[in-house]
Amino acid sequence: MPPFQRHVFVCTNRRPDGHPKGCCATKGGEEVRARFKEELEKRGLKGQMRANAAGCVDTCSFGVSVVVYPEGTWYGGVKPEDVPAIVDEHLVGGRPVERLLMPFSRGKTQE
Amino acid sequence: MPPFQRHVFVCTNRRPDGHPKGCCATKGGEEVRARFKEELEKRGLKGQMRANAAGCVDTCSFGVSVVVYPEGTWYGGVKPEDVPAIVDEHLVGGRPVERLLMPFSRGKTQE
Repeated sequence: MPPFQRHVFVCTNRRPDGHPKGCCATKGGEEVRARFKEELEKRGLKGQMRANAAGCVDTCSFGVSVVVYPEGTWYGGVKPEDVPAIVDEHLVGGRPVERLLMPFSRGKTQE
Repeated sequence: MPPFQRHVFVCTNRRPDGHPKGCCATKGGEEVRARFKEELEKRGLKGQMRANAAGCVDTCSFGVSVVVYPEGTWYGGVKPEDVPAIVDEHLVGGRPVERLLMPFSRGKTQE
């Protein structure tokens, strides 16, 4: 039962082919979300943490965009293979994965 | 540019007709989200706050489910006509709308 200790939102927004903004769906949004679900289940974190699909979070140029609440950490250019590091280092360990942070989310001290 | 002062996620998950859990889509999830967007725009809050569609947030019996971050406030049974109160009293005013809170989100002191 919510509230969740960490609530991860992965943009899976799809725009028409050729749209100038691009979209997270064509960059692998669904794959990233599936990988989050898989990694959370693997660690027995289902129920405590959740990975949700989200519509466009307005950071298209940084896609695949991932935002982690309640701390409000924004990751960009996330690939499925980045997910285990985010889960282990940040969601479990409390240290955001600096190399994947969006520029405006860098340098913040978080739990 | 994110981060947003308030980030609202509205469940718009759709399940097949007759699914025992029901879903937020048939209860009006899309209409609730559209109303949030409209009310935020009307108040000139676009860019500072955002209303996103989300997949199933695991509170199906309370749908339409709405969660507001960073504070992690959970609203249930939200109807489009409830949205102006959430925007004015909570998102702008900082006082959650008690009557719409999910049980586990009640009685918390928030900003």
